[in-house]
Parts: sequence; C-alpha cells; structure tokens
Amino acid sequence: MSERERRFAALGFELERAPTPAANYLPLVTHAGIAYLSGALPTDGERGLLYRGQVGDTISLEQGQRAAELCAVNLLRVLRAELGSLESIGSVLRLGVYVSSAPHFTDAHLVANGASDLLTKVLGDPGKHARSALSVPILPLGAAVEVDAIIALSQP
Amino acid sequence: MSERERRFAALGFELERAPTPAANYLPLVTHAGIAYLSGALPTDGERGLLYRGQVGDTISLEQGQRAAELCAVNLLRVLRAELGSLESIGSVLRLGVYVSSAPHFTDAHLVANGASDLLTKVLGDPGKHARSALSVPILPLGAAVEVDAIIALSQP
Amino acid sequence: MSERERRFAALGFELERAPTPAANYLPLVTHAGIAYLSGALPTDGERGLLYRGQVGDTISLEQGQRAAELCAVNLLRVLRAELGSLESIGSVLRLGVYVSSAPHFTDAHLVANGASDLLTKVLGDPGKHARSALSVPILPLGAAVEVDAIIALSQP
Repeated sequence: MSERERRFAALGFELERAPTPAANYLPLVTHAGIAYLSGALPTDGERGLLYRGQVGDTISLEQGQRAAELCAVNLLRVLRAELGSLESIGSVLRLGVYVSSAPHFTDAHLVANGASDLLTKVLGDPGKHARSALSVPILPLGAAVEVDAIIALSQP
Repeated sequence: MSERERRFAALGFELERAPTPAANYLPLVTHAGIAYLSGALPTDGERGLLYRGQVGDTISLEQGQRAAELCAVNLLRVLRAELGSLESIGSVLRLGVYVSSAPHFTDAHLVANGASDLLTKVLGDPGKHARSALSVPILPLGAAVEVDAIIALSQP
Repeated sequence: MSERERRFAALGFELERAPTPAANYLPLVTHAGIAYLSGALPTDGERGLLYRGQVGDTISLEQGQRAAELCAVNLLRVLRAELGSLESIGSVLRLGVYVSSAPHFTDAHLVANGASDLLTKVLGDPGKHARSALSVPILPLGAAVEVDAIIALSQP
C-alpha cells in the first residue's frame, strides 16, 4: 500500500468501491497525459447514493461538505480502478463542483471545500487545484453534489 | 463520403447545417491536438431552435434525449465545417451536458444519453467519453439542452 | 507596460486587484503549456463583490454584462499576478460563463458577451475562444456572474 493509499484509508474510506457509470459514458478517459473524469456523485459502493436533496434545505452545509468529500473519494476510487494506483496521479488540475442548492444558498464554495480538502489530505501539494463551484437546482438521481475533474498523470 | 459520414447520414441528419455562434465566440478552438467546442444548442440549421422549455415539464424525457442528440449532431457539424472532415476526430474526451429541468427532474443523465449514444453510433469506440450531466433552470434562448465538448484530434 | 496592459488600463481597470480565493483552491494551475483558471467573481479588489443577485431580476442585462466583464478582468489579473505578465497568454481556449438568472431569463449568452468582448479588446485575436454560457439560480456569495477559463500559454 502506497503512502497515498495509507492516507486515504486513514480517513476511513475504502478504495474498492469505485462507482459504475449511471448511464452511457466512461468513468475516465485519458489522452496525452491528462485524465478527464466524469462527474462523480456521493455514492459509496453498494450502499448507493448517500446524500440526496438540496444543500441549505434538507441537507446542511456540513452534510454537503461530506457529500462533496465523498464525490472526491469516488474520483480517487475511479483513478485507482482505471489506472491501477493513486501513484499515477501527477497533479489535480481542475475540479468542477456542482451543488444542488436551496434557492437562497450562497455557500457552494464552502461545500466544495469538502472535495478540495480531501484531495489535499490524500495527495498533498499535487492535490491543489483550480476550481469552479456552482449552485444548481437539482442533480442526477437527486444527488446533493456532483464533482468532476481534470487530472495530470504522473510521468511514467 | 467517409464511413463516419455515411453513418451520420444513415441516422437521418444532414452535415451541412453547422450552427453559427449566437454571440461573440468561436464555435471551436484547437490547440496542441485538442479541440474545445462551444456549447451547442438543439438547432437544425435554418429551422432554428427545435426544443425549448424544461425537460420534465413541457419537454418529455424522450424529447429531451432527441434534443441532446441534436446538440451532439451540431458538435459533429461544427467539427466537420471547421476541420473539413469527421475523420479529423481522434476521440471524444469529455462532454458537458446541461439540461433545462423541471424542479423535481432527476434524470439529466438519461437525457444526456441522447448525446452520448449519437456520438458512439457515428464514431464507434472513439466516440466514448467522460461526461458530466447537470440540471439547470433555463438555458440561452430557452433551449431544452446544451452540450459542449473537448475532443482529441486524429494524428495527421 | 506592454501593449496589452496599455489596452487593459485604457478600459479603466487596474491590474493590481487580483482576487484571492474565497476557499481552499488555487486561482490558477498550469500544466503542459495550459493554464486552468478558477471561477472568477465580479469583485474589484478591496471593494469586494460589486454585482449580486439574479440577472433579469434585480440585475439588468447591461449590469450583468458589466459583471461578466469584471469577471474576465479578474481572470486577466490572476494571469498577470501568477505568471508575471499578460504577454504570457498565448490564446484563450475556452470560457465557462455561469449567470445567476431570473427564472425566465434566456439571455445568458448576451451576458457572457461582456466577458468575451473584454478579452478580445485586450488580447485581440488570441482573445477569441470557445464558450459555454449557462443560467444557474444562484452563485457563491450571491454573485451575479462567474467565469472560468482554460488558457494556452505563449511559447517561452
């Protein structure tokens, strides 16, 4: 187990629960040293979707942050399942964080920190990234948060 | 006519109706073997915008899927108009699918399949991609769906 | 002062007011000659956020365009602060423009022109780009507009 995988496990997550696409797309495509990752939802393997509803309404800010964290966990799970190891991650370039939000909820950026903090805890400085955080009214399957990413692969 | 163009035509679409930008932007920018495509709406040349309104309200799921398909058709039309041929497409890396959705509509990912399926039908395996599907309340011109893309160009 | 900086200043903006991230992310990440920029809000240095609310409701189309322009100004400020000069910009590849919109507002693409026009005025042809414009109900901090970008760096 690599240092990154140790840090991941120490946060209480299992690496084995990579989500399977909910529709006709790939979890990840790589090209020219870059991986494009599909939007991940806050699912946890066979337990399914753990956070549904709008942040600021039925989902609190803290729950929203945990949902965003779980999305980032799933991005790492996908990278490991598809590329074999978290060591294949060179650096995180960009996150898109989409928060299902109550009409007057203006803290999508704080929700997004749940994903950003997780990536930094597991990957260290290479986990730091550019980011856009948006509020949307609703997401696929009623998920509270969705996160996608563009990742640079490590040099082979 | 290439094999890809034959498949495109067999689906009942004409390649000649590339949309023109609705505002001050380019339909496509290429750099270092990657094409960045602007968000395409479900227009059909001079017939204009064919799908308006919210999916789950005035637009059914099936109509939404056809709208997403037409957006993907327009992405291919743009690629052919700007690059000369569908053969210039190496592979589709990422789609962003934005669905104008009724407040309780949780099937944006199924709407997005309309775009994903079309690209796979025309391009085969190189049409498979990473993807994020989101619901938004409304889109430019009242369109039901908008789709953008990042595409790898084929090696010259 | 470079020609680009002269044009920037002639439009009445100061280059020194680069926004600082509102949360745990970097304003910009570069990799392999590409800069990924975080979503910029319509802030103006210590004056803070200048445009709040929904376009089509408390914010007019014209104000929304100025808000989008200010977001693009902040993208240029970030590029200069992080890379030392606007000359480091090779070309703008893609903008994402997110407009906090009233429920029936269908002109997000016209709002987005505020950002697109500013980039073309300052950078000339290299400022032309692919673009997606979306409406969302609300944005972080209540901002009226958010704009992110992918930029090609100039050859060293």
